[in-house]
Amino acid sequence: MEPIIIKYSMHPDLDNPVLLEGLPGVGNVGKLAADHLVDELKATKFATIYSRFLPPQVIVDDDSVVRLVDNSLYFWRSSKPWQHDIIFLVGDFQGITPEGQYELAMAVIELAEEMGVNRIYTLGGYGIGKIVQEPRVLGAATDISIVEELSEYGLEFSRGDPGSGIVGASGLLLGLGKTRGINGTCLMGETSGYFVDPAAAKAVLQILTKILKVDIEYQKLVDKATQIEDFHASILKDLEQSVEKGSKDLNYIG
Amino acid sequence: MEPIIIKYSMHPDLDNPVLLEGLPGVGNVGKLAADHLVDELKATKFATIYSRFLPPQVIVDDDSVVRLVDNSLYFWRSSKPWQHDIIFLVGDFQGITPEGQYELAMAVIELAEEMGVNRIYTLGGYGIGKIVQEPRVLGAATDISIVEELSEYGLEFSRGDPGSGIVGASGLLLGLGKTRGINGTCLMGETSGYFVDPAAAKAVLQILTKILKVDIEYQKLVDKATQIEDFHASILKDLEQSVEKGSKDLNYIG
Amino acid sequence: MEPIIIKYSMHPDLDNPVLLEGLPGVGNVGKLAADHLVDELKATKFATIYSRFLPPQVIVDDDSVVRLVDNSLYFWRSSKPWQHDIIFLVGDFQGITPEGQYELAMAVIELAEEMGVNRIYTLGGYGIGKIVQEPRVLGAATDISIVEELSEYGLEFSRGDPGSGIVGASGLLLGLGKTRGINGTCLMGETSGYFVDPAAAKAVLQILTKILKVDIEYQKLVDKATQIEDFHASILKDLEQSVEKGSKDLNYIG
Amino acid sequence: MEPIIIKYSMHPDLDNPVLLEGLPGVGNVGKLAADHLVDELKATKFATIYSRFLPPQVIVDDDSVVRLVDNSLYFWRSSKPWQHDIIFLVGDFQGITPEGQYELAMAVIELAEEMGVNRIYTLGGYGIGKIVQEPRVLGAATDISIVEELSEYGLEFSRGDPGSGIVGASGLLLGLGKTRGINGTCLMGETSGYFVDPAAAKAVLQILTKILKVDIEYQKLVDKATQIEDFHASILKDLEQSVEKGSKDLNYIG
Repeated sequence: MEPIIIKYSMHPDLDNPVLLEGLPGVGNVGKLAADHLVDELKATKFATIYSRFLPPQVIVDDDSVVRLVDNSLYFWRSSKPWQHDIIFLVGDFQGITPEGQYELAMAVIELAEEMGVNRIYTLGGYGIGKIVQEPRVLGAATDISIVEELSEYGLEFSRGDPGSGIVGASGLLLGLGKTRGINGTCLMGETSGYFVDPAAAKAVLQILTKILKVDIEYQKLVDKATQIEDFHASILKDLEQSVEKGSKDLNYIG
Repeated sequence: MEPIIIKYSMHPDLDNPVLLEGLPGVGNVGKLAADHLVDELKATKFATIYSRFLPPQVIVDDDSVVRLVDNSLYFWRSSKPWQHDIIFLVGDFQGITPEGQYELAMAVIELAEEMGVNRIYTLGGYGIGKIVQEPRVLGAATDISIVEELSEYGLEFSRGDPGSGIVGASGLLLGLGKTRGINGTCLMGETSGYFVDPAAAKAVLQILTKILKVDIEYQKLVDKATQIEDFHASILKDLEQSVEKGSKDLNYIG
Repeated sequence: MEPIIIKYSMHPDLDNPVLLEGLPGVGNVGKLAADHLVDELKATKFATIYSRFLPPQVIVDDDSVVRLVDNSLYFWRSSKPWQHDIIFLVGDFQGITPEGQYELAMAVIELAEEMGVNRIYTLGGYGIGKIVQEPRVLGAATDISIVEELSEYGLEFSRGDPGSGIVGASGLLLGLGKTRGINGTCLMGETSGYFVDPAAAKAVLQILTKILKVDIEYQKLVDKATQIEDFHASILKDLEQSVEKGSKDLNYIG
Repeated sequence: MEPIIIKYSMHPDLDNPVLLEGLPGVGNVGKLAADHLVDELKATKFATIYSRFLPPQVIVDDDSVVRLVDNSLYFWRSSKPWQHDIIFLVGDFQGITPEGQYELAMAVIELAEEMGVNRIYTLGGYGIGKIVQEPRVLGAATDISIVEELSEYGLEFSRGDPGSGIVGASGLLLGLGKTRGINGTCLMGETSGYFVDPAAAKAVLQILTKILKVDIEYQKLVDKATQIEDFHASILKDLEQSVEKGSKDLNYIG
């Protein structure tokens, strides 16, 4: 089989589009943010990417209907002159081997080049190993001019962060794009890294939407974040109760 | 070498056949079921698949004769107008890398397409981590119409099962087939997942044979199941005796 | 680079040769046996196999001179009408991935076919997990006629051994050869599997040389075996002394 | 994508150049040494190597600007008739799979051949598992004549070192070069292997510069070594203080 199969359902003709990537990763921050933006902007799916570099499995939906794991491409046409058309790259998984990561990213860069993309935004999480109350959004870019341009939107370009570089699709799309002369930026929401983090995704989107000059609602992300916080609170309560109960039992013994 | 080598011993001309897969997996349920059906229907082998995606080893039979590990294709010609011809995919192993899984599944889908297959059945086990008395048979399908069609045969389409998707050949054949317009269903027999489970294979076959409208005996599967139950019973008894002996010894000491 | 590079120093024209493989494996039995036979018969090297499927490293010899890891091909021309010419496959390593194992074995089979080989002997160890005093030599073959033919040489064809099949080059060369119509046999010397075992290699050679109708000395293998036995004996003695010393010390305390 | 992409910024015409490799490895000795020599000789970058065999990530610099991980090629033109022009191979990473190691090394060898290289020097560390006061520099070469030639520069060719061979780029470039008729030497600085070791890199360079007949300063390497020693000293002091504090606390309890 072809290592990467791109199935087009249509070939949209876009005007100077930007590419926006949000695939699974740390805290699923990038995926949550990009999926939310696709929903809110009512973007249209135009292509599906299948690949032997993705896991060998099917997803089963609530109706017991299966589909092969994939990455999907959506587009959104801007309605205002100051906005850009957007191509979205979202999906179930990233490539599962280093070589597969490169191949998938390069296939997307080549597709983006053909469609006239000259700016890439990649979204991700930045794991800091502890609960974050007010997540910052860190940035890194392919050129110093973009660092300067985007600093004014609240994106923090912090010396030496992330020290370990940016691994996976969010990094490769920028790196490979740069070798082809396409500039780009990664927006990384601070997150503990221990669980799926819609609050970090919201923080990322609040800056990204200012850059893209689009307006969206956040209610669904806020709801997801509340659910997760409630879940954590209930776990914590259970824990406290079992500790209390434990002390009472011990008292009784005493 | 060619990554996948298909050696044909004959090229059967079949009438609207279905493809039926049963390769090793959880509880070996799919393999046991498919091998049993091949035996009972006296299906005829027509091709052998060798591949560098299978383990690098030979199987040694009881006469000390070796053969390269493989997957095999059998066919069965229906004798009644209401039955379909069947192509069986059985074998020693599944592909041992994710990429190999994709390549092998795609090779089979392409072969199935050429032979006019328009329905795929894949068989497997659904590990639930505890001993099952009356295994249910869960289903998942490529289209909602098939879910409705097959529900009446006792196949259970359970919301959210399996949540983790279907991994390996049983999933990929459906997923890749769907991208080519071939519909299919996976039948998964509940099993502990701790040992080879002929009882789950029997449960799968009891529903599958109704769907395929074929009649078979189950004695060999029942015998295998009884052997395995006896083996478990004897282990349990040994365990109990050693516990009893242990307590007696302790009493003696006391 | 080409995945497999075969460098010929000469192209010997052989008469109906057999292929004999002895690469590293369990107890290094196959490698010890084949290397010893190459030495004793004064076989001539005619080709070197380099490959990206071998480990990425060089070997450093006693003079600090490096060479890339490889597999080597030697030939020996028979001097008696009842003997066969022999092609030897020996080397530093086997392929380090399953796919590499297949590719390397297939490259050798194709070379063997071109050189007119119609019989393959592969040598290996059969790990039994305990020290063996009189190692048996187990066999497996590509055809029942060879099993019968070779049983008379003392090679034991034991029902169900090895139950797990034969993994690696010794298995693949037989399995792939069989798909090309070349028959072959694996000779496996029983060994603990815990250390390099020249005694098992000698047992394998004593049967193999009868089959091949060649005469060789075993002194170098016996010397190696004695060295290893002495080494084990000294370890055992150290262990006993430290246990004795331990008891004395304990007595002293008592 | 092409597995290996070499981007040239210029095509220098060199006179009989040597190739000098220093990539990350044990104690980063080779990388530290080669990077230092590039800096001191003010070598000029002429090509960048990108590859799917390198990790799928970007490096983020202090200005938050990203670049794809790579290997780089520099050249230095000799100013004296007794010196050789030099091509440097330096970079962020080595290939991350065995096959990738072979492919990258072969790509460099082919490039070196085209540029007229007839001598290769590879630099590395030799881990000995304990702190080294006066690191020796061990050598290995593709030919006994080079062993003899270089012994007079203080390079130690020690029988049986390294017994395990030389793994990775430093080994492969010599091994693959040798198959193409290019001679070479590996210089290995003794190092504990527990941390980055500029002192071992300095030892390697002191011999290498004698061989290459170039003069350089070592201040930056010495500074790095001092920093690392200070860091170790401070850790040791902390440790001692906490032990002392521990004993005082224990005294107090007593």
